[in-house]
Amino acid sequence: MEARKAFGWAARDTSGILSPFSFDLRKMGFEDVYSTNYPLVPGHEIVGEMVEFGLEVKRFRVGDIVGVGCIVGSCGDCLYCKSNMEQYCPNAIFTIDGTNKDGSRTRGGFSSAMVVHQTFVVRIPEKLAPEQAAPLLCAGVTAYSPLKQFMGCDRVVRGGILGLGGVGHLGVIIAKAMGHHVTVISSSNKKREEALEILGADAFIVSSNEAEMEGAASSLDYILDTVPAFHPLHHYLSLLTVEGKLIIVAAVPKPLQFDAVDIILGKRSISGSFIGSMEETQEILEFWADKGLTTMIEIVKKEYANKAFERMERNDVRFRFVLDVAGSNLE
Amino acid sequence: MEARKAFGWAARDTSGILSPFSFDLRKMGFEDVYSTNYPLVPGHEIVGEMVEFGLEVKRFRVGDIVGVGCIVGSCGDCLYCKSNMEQYCPNAIFTIDGTNKDGSRTRGGFSSAMVVHQTFVVRIPEKLAPEQAAPLLCAGVTAYSPLKQFMGCDRVVRGGILGLGGVGHLGVIIAKAMGHHVTVISSSNKKREEALEILGADAFIVSSNEAEMEGAASSLDYILDTVPAFHPLHHYLSLLTVEGKLIIVAAVPKPLQFDAVDIILGKRSISGSFIGSMEETQEILEFWADKGLTTMIEIVKKEYANKAFERMERNDVRFRFVLDVAGSNLE
Repeated sequence: MEARKAFGWAARDTSGILSPFSFDLRKMGFEDVYSTNYPLVPGHEIVGEMVEFGLEVKRFRVGDIVGVGCIVGSCGDCLYCKSNMEQYCPNAIFTIDGTNKDGSRTRGGFSSAMVVHQTFVVRIPEKLAPEQAAPLLCAGVTAYSPLKQFMGCDRVVRGGILGLGGVGHLGVIIAKAMGHHVTVISSSNKKREEALEILGADAFIVSSNEAEMEGAASSLDYILDTVPAFHPLHHYLSLLTVEGKLIIVAAVPKPLQFDAVDIILGKRSISGSFIGSMEETQEILEFWADKGLTTMIEIVKKEYANKAFERMERNDVRFRFVLDVAGSNLE
Repeated sequence: MEARKAFGWAARDTSGILSPFSFDLRKMGFEDVYSTNYPLVPGHEIVGEMVEFGLEVKRFRVGDIVGVGCIVGSCGDCLYCKSNMEQYCPNAIFTIDGTNKDGSRTRGGFSSAMVVHQTFVVRIPEKLAPEQAAPLLCAGVTAYSPLKQFMGCDRVVRGGILGLGGVGHLGVIIAKAMGHHVTVISSSNKKREEALEILGADAFIVSSNEAEMEGAASSLDYILDTVPAFHPLHHYLSLLTVEGKLIIVAAVPKPLQFDAVDIILGKRSISGSFIGSMEETQEILEFWADKGLTTMIEIVKKEYANKAFERMERNDVRFRFVLDVAGSNLE
């Protein structure tokens, strides 16, 4: 079968402004699925309906609601691919602007349709609305993957969530659903009420408030650090108990700094975590459906996308935009 | 019984020059032991002979050769004291210039005798010469405690030792004795032969040699970082495999820096570790004796101490000075 066309909106230059764009999909292989896209956040948290599948695809049927996250390929042969850590494969193929094995570019989900290998497709549970599922495919699993290590702990885990954006708000919901005592650490008081009243956090600390920080010193088993800007780690490390973990999930453009004694004297650690595996992506979807959790999202149509980007730049979103592609005119 | 006097050499001002010094020992308690000191490194790696013990001391007999490390007290009641992590107790009492529970100062082992609670005394195995045991009581256990986590791994662990000083050289010996493949990472070629020929390391990399660093990229399960000066972590993190651990054991006067993506994309961690517990201190002594290991030391008498400090400042020691207090005239 020949390659088919799809329509999307794309950035054509460094302005970041999106405009309509037509492109070739890659040819279907025996293990590929072809899906049309449902509501999604721009590009890498994609929910759609399975329209067609290759000869070797047994896990899905036409009409299934499926999801695609940040990655649509990996080598399949390395240690990480073979141990459910394919996101760390050195040849992982990113969903947006990556290079497929046939040499074509990956185009993301901001389009009418896509072709994806079945390994990188998850099933959206029936109980879960597509717009609820979308933010879990990157932001949700980014918080879930490192927090999983605390499941099954025989005491109440005390966690901190640093930064309350797309990943952070899901981190609060997940940590609460896991039974943790959750403290939100934020740079201002602006989101205090949302954190405590709506998301159900147990405590809220403003990082510039010395008394609040001092009161929480050496109290947290972990901090999930979702802040994508420079911030001095020294202050946050002091909140961790002995063997406490600062877990960084957001890329930061400048080097981060810490004092060696902050980690030596408390046997603390600073670790990184990158999205999650496909297995974990399926797990967070089931977890969300089983526990009846709700993401805080704002659904917008394609026509609003550029405006939504503007608002994101201003940090004016509670807490994730979901783009309704099926309900938008892409052409 | 009244407090007794001891003699030592002490620094009297910021010059750091040592001169003879007489001081009161604290009174013996029911759980204290009184020992005279054998060869030691200045102050906090102390080996001596048990001379007298309190009513409640059952583990030791007069004449036992015993050791004292960096810590001579802790609260005894906290979570850490109760789980063999007393070195992380917020009220740990340091061997040098700490405050005993009776309000007196701790004086270190650079003296003719000392009084120590039995909890903070370890037994030197008979097979081990006192001068061989001394460096294990701080430097040795500092390397052993974090490396213990890799014992019992069912494949060959690939470790890096960053910096080849007192702690680093013991790190190489311990890691080799644990069966690891050991790479020494150093700032120059000066110690290449010692690392490979004498300490038995498997590989040696100069950190400024880009080809050598590139050749070892993503290959190490851990790096034990013993460098007590500023160094850019970015270069060393790139040597770690996915889930690799950079373990920092040396205080550094300036903040350390790293790029968030270096730890995110490889699920790597930067952690700290502080000496070791009393249990681990006893373990490393038994480990050393059982495996017939040898520390590389230079034994000096008290008269040479100030000269030895000078040489340490110049990094001119292979790899630890041990001070023979018993064979020195302290008065």
